[in-house]
Amino acid sequence: MNNNKVQTLKGFRDFLPETMAVRNYVKNLLISVFESYGFEPLETPALEYSSVLKGKYNDETDEKLGYFFKDNGDREIGLRYDLTVPTAKVLAIYGPQISMPFKRYQIQPVWRADNTQKGRYREFYQCDIDIFGSNSPITDAEIISIIYTATQKLNFKKFIIRINSRSVLSDLLVKSGITNNQNSALQSLDKFQKIGKDGVQKELINKDFTQVQINSLFKYIKEAKPDENLQAVFAAIKNYGIPENFYVFDSTLVRGCDYYTGTIFETSVEEPKIGSIGGGGRYDNLIETLGGPNIPAVGYSFGLEPLIDCINELNLLPELAKTKVKVMVANFGEKTISKSLELTSLLRENSIPAVFYPDEKKIGKQFKYASVKNIPFVALIGEDESVNDTVTIKNMFTSEQKTISQNEVIDFMLK
Amino acid sequence: MNNNKVQTLKGFRDFLPETMAVRNYVKNLLISVFESYGFEPLETPALEYSSVLKGKYNDETDEKLGYFFKDNGDREIGLRYDLTVPTAKVLAIYGPQISMPFKRYQIQPVWRADNTQKGRYREFYQCDIDIFGSNSPITDAEIISIIYTATQKLNFKKFIIRINSRSVLSDLLVKSGITNNQNSALQSLDKFQKIGKDGVQKELINKDFTQVQINSLFKYIKEAKPDENLQAVFAAIKNYGIPENFYVFDSTLVRGCDYYTGTIFETSVEEPKIGSIGGGGRYDNLIETLGGPNIPAVGYSFGLEPLIDCINELNLLPELAKTKVKVMVANFGEKTISKSLELTSLLRENSIPAVFYPDEKKIGKQFKYASVKNIPFVALIGEDESVNDTVTIKNMFTSEQKTISQNEVIDFMLK
Repeated sequence: MNNNKVQTLKGFRDFLPETMAVRNYVKNLLISVFESYGFEPLETPALEYSSVLKGKYNDETDEKLGYFFKDNGDREIGLRYDLTVPTAKVLAIYGPQISMPFKRYQIQPVWRADNTQKGRYREFYQCDIDIFGSNSPITDAEIISIIYTATQKLNFKKFIIRINSRSVLSDLLVKSGITNNQNSALQSLDKFQKIGKDGVQKELINKDFTQVQINSLFKYIKEAKPDENLQAVFAAIKNYGIPENFYVFDSTLVRGCDYYTGTIFETSVEEPKIGSIGGGGRYDNLIETLGGPNIPAVGYSFGLEPLIDCINELNLLPELAKTKVKVMVANFGEKTISKSLELTSLLRENSIPAVFYPDEKKIGKQFKYASVKNIPFVALIGEDESVNDTVTIKNMFTSEQKTISQNEVIDFMLK
Repeated sequence: MNNNKVQTLKGFRDFLPETMAVRNYVKNLLISVFESYGFEPLETPALEYSSVLKGKYNDETDEKLGYFFKDNGDREIGLRYDLTVPTAKVLAIYGPQISMPFKRYQIQPVWRADNTQKGRYREFYQCDIDIFGSNSPITDAEIISIIYTATQKLNFKKFIIRINSRSVLSDLLVKSGITNNQNSALQSLDKFQKIGKDGVQKELINKDFTQVQINSLFKYIKEAKPDENLQAVFAAIKNYGIPENFYVFDSTLVRGCDYYTGTIFETSVEEPKIGSIGGGGRYDNLIETLGGPNIPAVGYSFGLEPLIDCINELNLLPELAKTKVKVMVANFGEKTISKSLELTSLLRENSIPAVFYPDEKKIGKQFKYASVKNIPFVALIGEDESVNDTVTIKNMFTSEQKTISQNEVIDFMLK
């Protein structure tokens, strides 16, 4: 039989209730922070025209990482691989009807046909926040403020938000005499945190940049300072009250996507070495590229999976209830089933999560089920209880038993 | 520019915040009912091996309605078109490790390459509840009880849960002498509600069933009664306290999917004529078909879109807050920005959703924004307020203004 057993696709995951509890804890915490900052929910379809998705990141993503195919109507379509481009599409379509600034959050899965490895999946959730319609550096700072608040609330102690700007990078390249293949140079520079200065140098040599260019680049990286706009961002970050040890200017930060135009940032956790737990930046031209109006934008994407991986590794999870069920009503067969189901309904009507054990099995087996499921109380209506309009309540943690009147049950459970 | 404007695929939808509020209201209401019955959350991937999905419904679904394609690794894969089969897959894989009965809910989108029309989409959400590991008729009744409770809580007044059983249908067919092409006969019978007796008769004639068979079928449909198992289901429904006018035995109910084995049910709303808002039934063999252990199962799927369509048509929506934002802090430029951002942070730390207007625009324009966004209060720190450590609060509904000390703001907003 096992030979015929079905499988879940590699890189994809089924989430059983225990895992869902952790995922929902993180999602709900992020939502509450997002909403306290005035962000509103938005959702977009899983599938888009390929033309919407393609050409926004970089060539590698389009060719290798996308799930593209033709539908029955011969349309070229694909699964979204981030949430920024689909939302930029929404702004391209509905922008003129929306009051700006517009702040939206979006928590949905994205798909990438990537090589799978520890912590890398083909379906994963992004938790995005973006502010549309303002080019004020205060909005860039507001995004940094949310990152700080949410990351703190998730109990992360050691994390750093690295901040740079595309204009700082452009300036570096120009001053270093790198005027051709700028994107290629940036792609190498992007690996600074991972492969170090020597690694980047080796890559740049292989890419035929001259030693003079490379030396200048490293010199200017060291000397680089925030430009005027980035200074304004840092000033606003300070006004938001974010402690200085949580953010830093880093002239080596690049961020992969082609669509960034201004400030860029990335959050990393130092222990464990999970690396980036999220990134973002300003992209003032993307909506226009999609045929929409000129709407400046800045945003950030929390990766749900790296956040959860960190939380698990660092044991940052608060004690979550193992079940929401408070009572299991036992099954004593035909004679008392009517009263037992009535009791079950009554509990539920009073918002006390309750289950009824559906099968007439031995009471020991029923208790064992309640115990395995971590249900705190079992309510029993046997023949005696049925005659006397009482219920026997067993506390599954203390094994204490107590018989009370049926109309005391709700009060007992609520206290 | 409009010519280049991007589009959302036909049959797919972008959900802006106003629509999301309604969707979240329905989703959260369902979740609270599901959890009060002891159901736990579960999620499965959007993509599965085609072999998992195919052959479970009926041929039409596989051929016309599926989004199937090959991935980069040449695997035959497809987007799920319901949540039952993917969860049955989970049970086939993890079943032996899960304590039974296992009750799960799942709220996720599914995809069908269907013809689009009013109320029919290519991406839509299903809200599923299923009980695994018990063949007790009490579990069938429990599903009916949830349907009743959730539908009531959504303020539906006129709805009916039609109930039948595959064994009743089998019996009808056998007694009518229909032993060949039973599925074909059932597919016609399934249209009884839609095209009436005459319509069904015409179809059956076209399918070469004899007049004797057809006459018998209609005779037995009329005379049909719940069999022993279905009687037990009805008895348990009664014990759950569901009023009799909300459910009915209907021997013409078939339900499309091939995998049902026992009780089947469907909920319809009479006004507006939206038809089915959900359906389900017992499917005791599906998990074994997928190579898993023998685990009986019964479940139901609420269609989020028909529920919302009904709610909108019947005006059943309770008053939802137009925004969660309570205060907008106005922008008075450089001199007071530091205090204004501090105030914004303070409000958020106290769980009072707040936005800061990021651009230095005329105050009239800022008020207008708050008004359009339905934000109830605007907080102003101008130069006077800054010097005196005060804040002026404008109530946007009454236009009342009031200047208070900065350390009174939180109390003012919380009261």
